[in-house]
Amino acid sequence: MYRSHTCGELRESHINNTVTLSGWVQKSRDKGFMIWIDLRDRYGITQLIFDEERTASDLMEKAKMLGREFVIQVTGTVIERTSKNPKISTGNIEILVSDLEILNESLTPPFTIEDETDGGDDIRMKYRYLDIRRNPVRENLIFRHKVTMAVRNYLSEKEFVEVETPYLIKSTPEGARDFVVPSRMNEGQFYALPQSPQTFKQLLMVGGMDKYFQIVKCFRDEDLRADRQPEFTQIDCEMAFVEQEDILNTFEGLTRHIIKEIKGVEIGEFPRMTYDEAMQRYGNDKPDIRFGMEFGELNEVAKHKEFGVFNNAELVVGIAVPGGNSYSRKEIDKLIDWIKRPQVGALGMVYVRCNEDGSYKSSVDKFYDQDDLAKWAEVTGAKAGDLICVLSGDTLKVRTQLSALRMELAERLGLRKTDEFAPLWVVDFPLLEWDEDTERYHAMHHPFTSPKPEQIELLKTKPGEVKANAYDIVLNGNEIGGGSIRIHDKETQAMMFDYLGFTPEEAKAQFGFLMDAFQYGAPPHGGIAFGLDRLVSILGGQETIRDFIAFPKNNSGRDVMIDAPAPIDDTQLKELCLKLDLKA
Amino acid sequence: MYRSHTCGELRESHINNTVTLSGWVQKSRDKGFMIWIDLRDRYGITQLIFDEERTASDLMEKAKMLGREFVIQVTGTVIERTSKNPKISTGNIEILVSDLEILNESLTPPFTIEDETDGGDDIRMKYRYLDIRRNPVRENLIFRHKVTMAVRNYLSEKEFVEVETPYLIKSTPEGARDFVVPSRMNEGQFYALPQSPQTFKQLLMVGGMDKYFQIVKCFRDEDLRADRQPEFTQIDCEMAFVEQEDILNTFEGLTRHIIKEIKGVEIGEFPRMTYDEAMQRYGNDKPDIRFGMEFGELNEVAKHKEFGVFNNAELVVGIAVPGGNSYSRKEIDKLIDWIKRPQVGALGMVYVRCNEDGSYKSSVDKFYDQDDLAKWAEVTGAKAGDLICVLSGDTLKVRTQLSALRMELAERLGLRKTDEFAPLWVVDFPLLEWDEDTERYHAMHHPFTSPKPEQIELLKTKPGEVKANAYDIVLNGNEIGGGSIRIHDKETQAMMFDYLGFTPEEAKAQFGFLMDAFQYGAPPHGGIAFGLDRLVSILGGQETIRDFIAFPKNNSGRDVMIDAPAPIDDTQLKELCLKLDLKA
Repeated sequence: MYRSHTCGELRESHINNTVTLSGWVQKSRDKGFMIWIDLRDRYGITQLIFDEERTASDLMEKAKMLGREFVIQVTGTVIERTSKNPKISTGNIEILVSDLEILNESLTPPFTIEDETDGGDDIRMKYRYLDIRRNPVRENLIFRHKVTMAVRNYLSEKEFVEVETPYLIKSTPEGARDFVVPSRMNEGQFYALPQSPQTFKQLLMVGGMDKYFQIVKCFRDEDLRADRQPEFTQIDCEMAFVEQEDILNTFEGLTRHIIKEIKGVEIGEFPRMTYDEAMQRYGNDKPDIRFGMEFGELNEVAKHKEFGVFNNAELVVGIAVPGGNSYSRKEIDKLIDWIKRPQVGALGMVYVRCNEDGSYKSSVDKFYDQDDLAKWAEVTGAKAGDLICVLSGDTLKVRTQLSALRMELAERLGLRKTDEFAPLWVVDFPLLEWDEDTERYHAMHHPFTSPKPEQIELLKTKPGEVKANAYDIVLNGNEIGGGSIRIHDKETQAMMFDYLGFTPEEAKAQFGFLMDAFQYGAPPHGGIAFGLDRLVSILGGQETIRDFIAFPKNNSGRDVMIDAPAPIDDTQLKELCLKLDLKA
Repeated sequence: MYRSHTCGELRESHINNTVTLSGWVQKSRDKGFMIWIDLRDRYGITQLIFDEERTASDLMEKAKMLGREFVIQVTGTVIERTSKNPKISTGNIEILVSDLEILNESLTPPFTIEDETDGGDDIRMKYRYLDIRRNPVRENLIFRHKVTMAVRNYLSEKEFVEVETPYLIKSTPEGARDFVVPSRMNEGQFYALPQSPQTFKQLLMVGGMDKYFQIVKCFRDEDLRADRQPEFTQIDCEMAFVEQEDILNTFEGLTRHIIKEIKGVEIGEFPRMTYDEAMQRYGNDKPDIRFGMEFGELNEVAKHKEFGVFNNAELVVGIAVPGGNSYSRKEIDKLIDWIKRPQVGALGMVYVRCNEDGSYKSSVDKFYDQDDLAKWAEVTGAKAGDLICVLSGDTLKVRTQLSALRMELAERLGLRKTDEFAPLWVVDFPLLEWDEDTERYHAMHHPFTSPKPEQIELLKTKPGEVKANAYDIVLNGNEIGGGSIRIHDKETQAMMFDYLGFTPEEAKAQFGFLMDAFQYGAPPHGGIAFGLDRLVSILGGQETIRDFIAFPKNNSGRDVMIDAPAPIDDTQLKELCLKLDLKA
């Protein structure tokens, strides 16, 4: 038995007990006649004491040799501490050690095992097993576990069944790129790793499972942007005999439960907003509604003068920045530089200072008078002391730019509070989106999403205007989940594949099994998938998913700790009937 | 809203209520003036009634058109049934339908959707989504979910943390064959899918997670024997600061909890048996102890006569078959044929009939007298009316053969009762096993298993005799889990790799990260992994894991429903820098 208690467990009530603890040497203070050691395990820290008067001299000597991160086992007596430490749960006691065994030594770790470490990202990833010893990382992983347990228990309670779907499936060239797995037993053929269990969960609905969920790894071989992982985890859900309303209510319930259970925060009914409204009010289909700064469209009150920039723009739109009138000219110039960066891409910005005396001072005073500017203030909701920022141009572009500015300013103003949770539903997404590169429509959600039934006719004439029974759940400006009511009949599904540019042969080869299934009594069904990594990081008050993944990969898709991927043996390649065909 | 209630929900207390149900047409009986329909969903069956006197004639017509597996929605009034059906929970009521909507039609399914179907294995796999509509398959999947929830809640309660380990890892040529995944971003390099999260869970222990578990898919590219799947699920567990005893107690607790929670059966302390004892008493390292028929070693009482077959054998060993004296000569001959089959491979069998009058009649009466045979009966525990079956030859082979015979006879005698649960621990496994093909030792468990500390010296002289801190948990003659105390220091690990024939360079290339980790304060640790598919099928009283997997693969590793694996596009191959190099 390596321990009678953990390092987080002992209290004053244990005084005089003989106990055995095991753990890591967090730090050691050697005063010569007395040595204190902080012993650490997952559960806490307990102070050990060795003292000339009460400790055998060979034990003193042994204690002096202990270095940081040595693994030791000690036996001793719990005694009251003279100088108590109220910051830790065991701070009232310490252990007078009578026996010490070194279970394992340690080299000096390459960075400090402290909450605030001196290790950079790269070294922490290479020695991730040491990084995990640090409280913040370990607590993130425990937090993630708590979230998944809350999800599983809630959904099980509601009669959802977790069903494991296969990982070795079939590649479908449509959508994102698949990771593929050569099959040795089926020469020249490949499995693919699932980008999501989408078709399988639909087949489970056809199979009458009624309510399905799964917390499951998914894979996408994409060029990695910051904070994307080639493998990621979804809370994947599907229900039969449901309309959109049923899905929204069920998963609003789940989300509310998680926030209550994990964060202790009660949330009322989630607001709902159409995609069109979200774009109009926030320039974004995942608006952060923890703060205002809503868009004010200024076309009617800004296009009547001689200002060509506005007159030629499709959309003139502004936001009121609270207290922004205090910005110096230099600060405003820097803001203008910021929105002109290629990542945002605005051509310029018009601004209006709302003075405390009710007057206005704008960068376009040449064209607009006080009455005009008062109207702008009214539309954007600007009050005395605010700054109105106005952009103009093509609707979609200018909305995206102003949304970026809104988020940036909110960040700077401290309006994105990590302990505040503002979920909402965005509904009525467009069914299709135009892709400039391929010059055809793509499914905005995926090809299994059903168009609004009353708009099916519109598909023939104005496909871009057709809305889908598709919805996203948004939390604090992040899409944490999305889903749709699915197509459940073969004809509509075939028609959709046709619109998306599949030949009937391609559709049959890739999704024949699903369309076959639809012919044998498929029920109406729909679902949703949450991105677990993102959800957990937002609930944890952070925005980097990597901090909530035990062994993440870097931006080149490498695990730098185990050094993967790596070359494989020629015999392995031969067995798989493959040859390397390197470009270089 | 598609339904106000499910098809398993309505009772007499709902009589006169107006309800809406949705589901599948299970069957329809049309008497002309009256039509009954069994409407089915996951939760049960409810009888619908349409009747000339009370139902509108167009609705009667519509009801007549409904075929098997049509998906319908009905609204109607709950009424009392005249002829009640006590077999189903809704058997006291029926629905007088006032409104019927066909949600989806169905072709005639290729097999009947009944508990006992007329569909063979192949067709059921091709249309697995229809197979899942059958109660036994669906209930198996729900059963599996209940088991995983019980496991997760029990372990969470005991402070285990479920941590997701990566799926895209590194190939290690040692052990079973890996599935590999070409990396597009790292030309000519490959990930491997994990055969188990072994090294990662050990790194989590080095990282101080203390108690880890994960229910996780694992992958092995083996030639598939019956009832093996290329992807399978493990309950993977690891603990730090533990000795073998701690692990056995913890997971005995888990197993006891599952059997209690899921099957309502209370199990006392699990028996423990060393590997050597299990081999001696049952010829098997996973003995089924639900019944006796233990081995009796007969060397001392059978090698003293002129019978060369026994005298030249390393081991003479027998079992007593209860009531076996009733077997006819023909039946015994068939048994002898059975053990001579190449799958078992015995050269012959000696038998002794134990007559009711206390006399014996054997196939070797020429060599042995009644006193000899009485001793055999004593050693094998045979009673009057039994049959003693005796095999002889090389120890390991003959034990395996007699074990096969014991299991076969127990099966025939109905001794392997599916509602009886007899778990046990088999401990003290050998560390190494000799491999005839490669003429070297292999790790019996895996290379991370620690030898018994007191036997480390023996490694140099008699490596085959060294025992490991390794254990299996056995249930009803199946290994449901196995594990070990791990090596946690770099020197021992390096020595093990050396014994296993790794050069230092190979060891470093493949497991350098683990040996590095051991230098930074690795705690003593150990763990276990349960095979979930097997565990669930045994708890479910069946022995075919495929019945407990939603979408299993066939013996060629194919998913015949989605038709995977499949060829991929040339562009995909090109992006991965690969060329096919087919043998044909």
